[in-house]
Amino acid sequence: MSHTAPSLPSGTRDFLPHETLNRQYLFGVIRQVFAKFGYQPIETPAMEKLSVLTGKYGEEGDQLIFKILNNGDYLSKVDEALLARRDSKALIPQLAERALRYDLTVPFARYVVMHQNELAFPFKRYQIQPVWRADRPQKGRYREFYQCDVDVVGSNSLLHEAEFIAIYDEVLSTLGLRDFSIRLNHRALLQSLTELAGVPDQFADVCVAIDKLDKIGPDGVARELSERGLRPEAAQQILSLIGLKGSPQAMLDELGPLVAATPSGSRGIAELREVLRLAEYMGIRQAKVEIDLTLARGLSYYTGTIFEVVSHEVQMGSLGGGGRYDNLTGMFGRNGLSGAGISLGAERIYDVLEALGLFGQLPHQGTQVLILHTAEAEGDECRMLSQLRSCGIASERYPEPAKLGKQFGYADKKRIPWCVLYGAEERQEGLLSLKNMQTGEQQRLTPHALLAILGHDGATSPNP
Amino acid sequence: MSHTAPSLPSGTRDFLPHETLNRQYLFGVIRQVFAKFGYQPIETPAMEKLSVLTGKYGEEGDQLIFKILNNGDYLSKVDEALLARRDSKALIPQLAERALRYDLTVPFARYVVMHQNELAFPFKRYQIQPVWRADRPQKGRYREFYQCDVDVVGSNSLLHEAEFIAIYDEVLSTLGLRDFSIRLNHRALLQSLTELAGVPDQFADVCVAIDKLDKIGPDGVARELSERGLRPEAAQQILSLIGLKGSPQAMLDELGPLVAATPSGSRGIAELREVLRLAEYMGIRQAKVEIDLTLARGLSYYTGTIFEVVSHEVQMGSLGGGGRYDNLTGMFGRNGLSGAGISLGAERIYDVLEALGLFGQLPHQGTQVLILHTAEAEGDECRMLSQLRSCGIASERYPEPAKLGKQFGYADKKRIPWCVLYGAEERQEGLLSLKNMQTGEQQRLTPHALLAILGHDGATSPNP
Repeated sequence: MSHTAPSLPSGTRDFLPHETLNRQYLFGVIRQVFAKFGYQPIETPAMEKLSVLTGKYGEEGDQLIFKILNNGDYLSKVDEALLARRDSKALIPQLAERALRYDLTVPFARYVVMHQNELAFPFKRYQIQPVWRADRPQKGRYREFYQCDVDVVGSNSLLHEAEFIAIYDEVLSTLGLRDFSIRLNHRALLQSLTELAGVPDQFADVCVAIDKLDKIGPDGVARELSERGLRPEAAQQILSLIGLKGSPQAMLDELGPLVAATPSGSRGIAELREVLRLAEYMGIRQAKVEIDLTLARGLSYYTGTIFEVVSHEVQMGSLGGGGRYDNLTGMFGRNGLSGAGISLGAERIYDVLEALGLFGQLPHQGTQVLILHTAEAEGDECRMLSQLRSCGIASERYPEPAKLGKQFGYADKKRIPWCVLYGAEERQEGLLSLKNMQTGEQQRLTPHALLAILGHDGATSPNP
Repeated sequence: MSHTAPSLPSGTRDFLPHETLNRQYLFGVIRQVFAKFGYQPIETPAMEKLSVLTGKYGEEGDQLIFKILNNGDYLSKVDEALLARRDSKALIPQLAERALRYDLTVPFARYVVMHQNELAFPFKRYQIQPVWRADRPQKGRYREFYQCDVDVVGSNSLLHEAEFIAIYDEVLSTLGLRDFSIRLNHRALLQSLTELAGVPDQFADVCVAIDKLDKIGPDGVARELSERGLRPEAAQQILSLIGLKGSPQAMLDELGPLVAATPSGSRGIAELREVLRLAEYMGIRQAKVEIDLTLARGLSYYTGTIFEVVSHEVQMGSLGGGGRYDNLTGMFGRNGLSGAGISLGAERIYDVLEALGLFGQLPHQGTQVLILHTAEAEGDECRMLSQLRSCGIASERYPEPAKLGKQFGYADKKRIPWCVLYGAEERQEGLLSLKNMQTGEQQRLTPHALLAILGHDGATSPNP
């Protein structure tokens, strides 16, 4: 067999043990918070029918979906004329019936429609799974990455929006973030701005332009709005409104009279007030909750409150976002189910935690104890090992005879905090030697004292 | 947009919330045991380069790999002659640079070679991830399913084999299995049998034939061996040896002198003795440990002790298997790394647990408390919700006004064990009503008493 020099597809990653442990911790915190708020996990397959995904992400999105080549003699049934023309694009549905999921939202909509008779509505689900996109890989952007979504469908209650604020707050503060903002806006308020400016039909144009305020400044937005056909006065009116700053309460008080002339304006103000009022009951730990009228969110399906989260400790862009949508399952023929959801950008949050050194503050998660290998005490060393494990303590015995230096080197490389030696001297004294690998300190002690140091007094019932 | 009637690709599954929770529990137990034995988690991407996977699983395996169609104008660079011939098979590498992983073993070998300078050797890793195979779907066989593998490379110590016995024992007994066997054999013993029968070059033939003993009986195996060219006496000799029964110790005592004439026989006996001796030190909880000379394991890379696990409570085939291999990373040009590993068949173990009703005995894992919605006590209900959650109790408030019957129906459907009502009477008394949804019992109590019933006395520090 010829040897393949091994490498990975561009944009994909292997995870080393310490990275995998960090990711398990991160997903664990997210999962625990989602569950505490009454959301239940579901999973969907990585492969969806291509027809389920096509047309849901726009022309550009369709091109970024990874398609799976049909098995068997996949060329036997393709259209001859298309093949003669080498029409790669038109042939895709004939060559690939399946594709890798591109996000968790469309599979979720499919899932709700397919299983609607088995689900309790309002249906509150979370989903933490990888998605695949054929984007050009770059720093922080991968072709395989995890999404963490939490959604509720079948309820109009704004309690959910308030809980999303609480979820963001609890997840990020539990992870150790101290300075971050949850930004809110409402699509109806944005609609109201376009109505007030006399351009109600240019809602999408206005959203696209103001979304860029951070990047291109007010003059840039004014230019862009005028390029999209708005009169300068209309553009200025929109700019002056979205420039409003202040506490959420103050902003709503000031905006209220200005947008009261439009039904959408009144609705937006009233719903944001309600969301903030309910969020207050939940108690906020660390988050700054802000209203940001420049927040538009690209996705067209949002119809109510929209969300975005940013860290002020590390510049990393949005750590999550979401909003209310009126008719997500409509794409699969099930109308009338209102819902709302948010997403946590786990890969970016990982990078923030790493930049802040927060993973380093976690308790050590791998092997706690290495029992050094001596040829003479095999039985005792194996039984000790078994006893440590029955107390729930992750432990290993170095598997073969080796110089102590090599065995310590293994412990160092694996970041094992404790080494135990049961050598000739120790056996004579009936004690163990314990070495703290961080400080280098060594001590002789009884097996019972060892368990006490490791947080188990031996009386503790063994963990499974 | 036309409505797509949603469905799933054949052989793939959605998981409902209770199924996903059961799977989380199952994987959690497996992960915890692996970690206690000093194994560290890694993850590899779902997509591998097709060239990394091709040629590792045999001709048939190659056909069952899911290939990913190249993005962009994938037809622009294909060989014209092959396309003209509609040569689906030869065109695969030109149309698909990537594929979905088929197992965890080949990606692990690639990983070890690619990251050898970052790893501590002996490298002990576990990996719990899905794999994809284009097998014909049937009951219990899926196209996307999880594998749970634990492997060590860079050590010849038989301590690992002994620990694999302990790992199987601990995982399955923790999950509640009471009657299962861990079957051992040794490839060198099988080699010895073929040498004694005078057909040392027909090792593979002999393995294939005796692997079928359960299905076709001794006569069938004799017939198959003779079809493969063995003389009847040779076939009989092999059959009489593999027919040996008894305790592991008795079998080794009886076999020892019979195979002592071949070096492979002596090695097999000595290593099995050593594995059993070390396993003894570890302490076995529930497993029957057996030597089964008919166990051959199909995969060609095994070179030492081999394993298989079966349940006697539910007929489900093998729940896991594995063994020692001398040169797994050789396929990627890194020779001289001996290793050993086992796999747990999570999907089958799931089916066994379900058949035995063991999931039903788990503590309820979803929402614990539903606070019923009354219009008048919104603030109190929301604050109660927040307090329950800060004690780590998964809770919800029914999100909108609805008849109590509907709200109880929601709790039933979601299997929420407790409902709390803070209605007009309760408010007057300063108490809550608590309904046990399983028994139907109701009681009035203080918020403090509620926390006590739910296992939190209020003094407990809130879980994150």
